[in-house]
Amino acid sequence: MLTVFGDIRSGNCLKVKWLLDRLGRDHQWVETDIMSGASRTPEFLAINPAGQTPTVVLEDGRPLAQSNAILLYFAEGTPFIPTDAYARARMMEWLFWEQYSHEPYVAVARFQRLYLGKSAEEIEPRLMERGRAALERLEDALAGRDWLVGDAPTVADLALVAYTRAAHEGGFDLTPLPNLRAWIQRVEAAFAIG
Amino acid sequence: MLTVFGDIRSGNCLKVKWLLDRLGRDHQWVETDIMSGASRTPEFLAINPAGQTPTVVLEDGRPLAQSNAILLYFAEGTPFIPTDAYARARMMEWLFWEQYSHEPYVAVARFQRLYLGKSAEEIEPRLMERGRAALERLEDALAGRDWLVGDAPTVADLALVAYTRAAHEGGFDLTPLPNLRAWIQRVEAAFAIG
Repeated sequence: MLTVFGDIRSGNCLKVKWLLDRLGRDHQWVETDIMSGASRTPEFLAINPAGQTPTVVLEDGRPLAQSNAILLYFAEGTPFIPTDAYARARMMEWLFWEQYSHEPYVAVARFQRLYLGKSAEEIEPRLMERGRAALERLEDALAGRDWLVGDAPTVADLALVAYTRAAHEGGFDLTPLPNLRAWIQRVEAAFAIG
Repeated sequence: MLTVFGDIRSGNCLKVKWLLDRLGRDHQWVETDIMSGASRTPEFLAINPAGQTPTVVLEDGRPLAQSNAILLYFAEGTPFIPTDAYARARMMEWLFWEQYSHEPYVAVARFQRLYLGKSAEEIEPRLMERGRAALERLEDALAGRDWLVGDAPTVADLALVAYTRAAHEGGFDLTPLPNLRAWIQRVEAAFAIG
């Protein structure tokens, strides 16, 4: 059976779970607690030498890592990946932007608060600034549109909603970002995120 | 004509130039100096609201950003993207890993030395540690193989060689990494990187 090694509190891991559930793909979830070193054991490193979650092991035993690469693999051929070459490219642009300019700030601030127990004052101001800039960029990009790319939800929406919907846990205030708040609800509905 | 806005010292920008040159795609290069704010002008932000280089403007005027998304767009249908679904997924895995676990350390250390003029002692030790870990992971992944994915060069090799070949400028020593050094030469030859 398809196996997902993931931490159920991690947006990167939840992305994968949400897509598989939405596509009706049976899978086994192996809870992998990064805080207790479960992603650094010799057994885990044999599957993914990068020691990162999520990592999936396909039915034939082959591994695959990197949340957005996993989304692309399973969503190929579904309506969640556009067929038009330019629309696909824009979706890719958002996926790379998510991992480079959004996750390292929005998710990391949340990680420091939630996992490491830091107070608001202990979070590096640069982290909050860049996180806010990423959220504001999303707010602007969503002005007058329902989805990040084209007229339907794609894996770009799924990838970006994961930590955006949890941004308040990192101390980010979404109140002044109405496009973003409405989009979160749309994406949650489209992917049946509880 | 296809236009590339980029900084010629930036590995992320050079990736795009190398691929376009290799594919014989005519393009205009607009040198965009991020240090003098050229990627933060209202004109540039109208093209790419993220204010990041490289950004390309296609022949029909539509913009596209994020170096690896740009590589995927132009390389689609060429031998540099595998057709097998799993091989494609592994290529994607390396592309996302590059932007998340390699570039933010290997490229950023180089940026601080080269662009900001910091000395070796002024570079945050964590940056060097994580950069070394990324380079060692590549060294291990290349044991007994010529290319990162399958039996031929892909855009994953191109994306990862960009800052790896310049890692010494960030203070990283590639001497103890023979697989990596041999692979750099292979990738440079495959993509005619001078």
